Amino acid sequence: MIRVTVWNEFRHEKTDERVAAIYPDGIHKTIAAFLDTDEEITVRTATLDEPECGLTQEVLDTTDVLLWWGHLAHHEVPDEIVDRVQESVLKGMGLIVLHSAHHSKIFKRLMGTSCNLTWREDGDMERLWVVAPDHPIAQGIDRYFDLPHEETYGEPFDIPEPDKLVFIGWYEGGEVLRAGCCYRRGRGKIFYFQPGHETFPTFKAHWVQTVITNAVHWAVPESRIALLECPNVTNPEPRF
Amino acid sequence: MIRVTVWNEFRHEKTDERVAAIYPDGIHKTIAAFLDTDEEITVRTATLDEPECGLTQEVLDTTDVLLWWGHLAHHEVPDEIVDRVQESVLKGMGLIVLHSAHHSKIFKRLMGTSCNLTWREDGDMERLWVVAPDHPIAQGIDRYFDLPHEETYGEPFDIPEPDKLVFIGWYEGGEVLRAGCCYRRGRGKIFYFQPGHETFPTFKAHWVQTVITNAVHWAVPESRIALLECPNVTNPEPRF
Amino acid sequence: MIRVTVWNEFRHEKTDERVAAIYPDGIHKTIAAFLDTDEEITVRTATLDEPECGLTQEVLDTTDVLLWWGHLAHHEVPDEIVDRVQESVLKGMGLIVLHSAHHSKIFKRLMGTSCNLTWREDGDMERLWVVAPDHPIAQGIDRYFDLPHEETYGEPFDIPEPDKLVFIGWYEGGEVLRAGCCYRRGRGKIFYFQPGHETFPTFKAHWVQTVITNAVHWAVPESRIALLECPNVTNPEPRF
Amino acid sequence: MIRVTVWNEFRHEKTDERVAAIYPDGIHKTIAAFLDTDEEITVRTATLDEPECGLTQEVLDTTDVLLWWGHLAHHEVPDEIVDRVQESVLKGMGLIVLHSAHHSKIFKRLMGTSCNLTWREDGDMERLWVVAPDHPIAQGIDRYFDLPHEETYGEPFDIPEPDKLVFIGWYEGGEVLRAGCCYRRGRGKIFYFQPGHETFPTFKAHWVQTVITNAVHWAVPESRIALLECPNVTNPEPRF
Repeated sequence: MIRVTVWNEFRHEKTDERVAAIYPDGIHKTIAAFLDTDEEITVRTATLDEPECGLTQEVLDTTDVLLWWGHLAHHEVPDEIVDRVQESVLKGMGLIVLHSAHHSKIFKRLMGTSCNLTWREDGDMERLWVVAPDHPIAQGIDRYFDLPHEETYGEPFDIPEPDKLVFIGWYEGGEVLRAGCCYRRGRGKIFYFQPGHETFPTFKAHWVQTVITNAVHWAVPESRIALLECPNVTNPEPRF
Repeated sequence: MIRVTVWNEFRHEKTDERVAAIYPDGIHKTIAAFLDTDEEITVRTATLDEPECGLTQEVLDTTDVLLWWGHLAHHEVPDEIVDRVQESVLKGMGLIVLHSAHHSKIFKRLMGTSCNLTWREDGDMERLWVVAPDHPIAQGIDRYFDLPHEETYGEPFDIPEPDKLVFIGWYEGGEVLRAGCCYRRGRGKIFYFQPGHETFPTFKAHWVQTVITNAVHWAVPESRIALLECPNVTNPEPRF
Repeated sequence: MIRVTVWNEFRHEKTDERVAAIYPDGIHKTIAAFLDTDEEITVRTATLDEPECGLTQEVLDTTDVLLWWGHLAHHEVPDEIVDRVQESVLKGMGLIVLHSAHHSKIFKRLMGTSCNLTWREDGDMERLWVVAPDHPIAQGIDRYFDLPHEETYGEPFDIPEPDKLVFIGWYEGGEVLRAGCCYRRGRGKIFYFQPGHETFPTFKAHWVQTVITNAVHWAVPESRIALLECPNVTNPEPRF
Repeated sequence: MIRVTVWNEFRHEKTDERVAAIYPDGIHKTIAAFLDTDEEITVRTATLDEPECGLTQEVLDTTDVLLWWGHLAHHEVPDEIVDRVQESVLKGMGLIVLHSAHHSKIFKRLMGTSCNLTWREDGDMERLWVVAPDHPIAQGIDRYFDLPHEETYGEPFDIPEPDKLVFIGWYEGGEVLRAGCCYRRGRGKIFYFQPGHETFPTFKAHWVQTVITNAVHWAVPESRIALLECPNVTNPEPRF
């Protein structure tokens, strides 16, 4: 079983009626619900206002893949929680970073860049093109899929060159974005996926659910290790 | 001085009035003319119907950067000329591959893939987005530039993952393309650039000229070598 | 079941007593034998002197992963067989290229470079270091493993930058090599692995068998497709 | 002119006689001295115990390339200085990270990983192999060069996959390291180079000076920008 934890800031849903109408129990519950239909996945959720943001060491140690949605309150996530999540990723935990979490502390920490981009909230149609049709995250998708309305995110997107670019987003109003990007940091796999604005039912869209489910399967660690330290070693012994 | 050779198939211009109207002396002459205004560049041209396609060993040995435009007659370029160009690239000669030359023998040879893509000839507007604003080829360009009409090329584009993706093309009709891609093969630098359909005055567009001129400067070899062979060596001597 | 075909030139074993002593039935049979102990793998072999090199279209169409060992007679593999194998790789078939097959027509075709390197046949000890401990191909291996004797292959190795570098080889006499390199070309995954000189029992070494078995599992295609052609498309239809 | 600032922790030289004997005025002065012989370079130095670590905003704003050597006291560099240097790099300033600065706050910040590796202080001979002979940083160097004694740094080195691997280090005692690694973060170029242990005269070695001088020329920014913010934009206007 793949042990998934879906983390959500869970603030918009309590204060913005438009968001509450789409995600009455929170974005995390919607994501958890569709992942839960996969027989190989078992899901928990965690949110900002729980103790330790719901991300105790015990939770992280028993999480294979963590999903992260945040927007308004990135700065409220304590640095010690960010340290803890980073260490888990470097040890092997997968991390899927959704939409406005491009500006989360944990994503910026792992990328080393500002992760800035341009944005417009005009509800453009978005088309997501598969540029790596052989990649596990693109399986089951044809050349592209569409979302009737999304927030527009545009280049330049200040990220390191992805290890693998899987999707490019095309927006009706004229922008493009590297919208699905794979990275490895330490032993952990990271996938950034652009769709998921809180005022649209993006996480209820069939193809978005396909991509996120694929990404969970892809991000499962090959192995988990105690964080590699920086050991003073002796001359290596033969190992035939 | 950077010694540039602009190679053109030079067939459309002789048989298609629309093309002749835009490029009466051939696409190569238009490209040569704007490059020639750069004080650091000296330009020659070569075309398919010249002896040895205009690409004798002597021409290649005195070319720092070769530009290539072809479309109808890729198959008419003899394999021995392709071998010769490939060897020059591996030794260090820069190569800039324009538009429909994605299907040229030399580009497919260097990529190892089919270089297939999808295409529509509807004269869509194209917007080219800079995704690597720090790259030498993108200097002088803001976040994007536009072309009023271009042939639409769409993903999936069957190329190896670029060493560096510099431009993404957005098309009015809904496609995207990795439209500016950098590679290194052997000691040679290669840049594929999508714009340049023969029925539009693309090579007369200011920003296209900027990109191609930048690419010429970027593709200049650091050094030219006799093609590395596969030598049987002795135990390396100390070299302090 | 993963359908594997092990291709071997199978010439040294017939003419060189030292090789025959180690691999009396041919290198391919030794590789096939250890792969055959994996319950998820079913193995066939093919050799140069069989009709069509043993690689009929039917064989390739029913092969998930092809292994390739060659040395003396790369030039005897007909170009039409190389075309056929390349097309299969671009459609999704995995390819594992062993040792001196760095100079095989199929590897050079897929890389686009000379694939030259330096070599010494002094029977140096080789140590293979894992530089991507999270990679599927490195699973089960600690930081490194050793081979008592191998042919020394040295940098510079004229290959495109690997999509992923998994192993670096250290040789007693002072060389290094990027000894385990992953690529994607089209939909196919490719792994080059340096060990495997015919005069040493390298393919009987435990860790080499681990690496090759891991590589077979890794190279299984996500999906097989008819080779993408270069279709003239119409304006994309919405696909929600 | 390329404006270089050489930053050094400058502690070993004051407390360890072996180090003081080699670098009586500090590692930074030795590096500054050889860079200063390049007509296109103008050099300043800065050290940990100066106010603001010698890295005021004004200094950074007038630095094209910053070199960084640190070891004992990484933790004494205040986070606000690290923030400031990171922002300068993202805006375009080049950064060259030397030897034990793999564990500096600034390098770990930009990489997002632990940057751990293994180490032995046995004074092994090191051989540095050029794996990217076409790269600007490798110009003037043949296939390899040697250092009679260096600290041994070994894989696995917990760094993101380099954008470009230029050198691999071979150590007499059996290790290898990705010893020369290029990255881009934001608009800034970063080069990590392994040689430079304080108890050996590594920065006086001819080839090391060649590499560092080449790296300075390579790391010069194409352009410097105000840090890209994350602007709310309007629909892009045509820009022909």
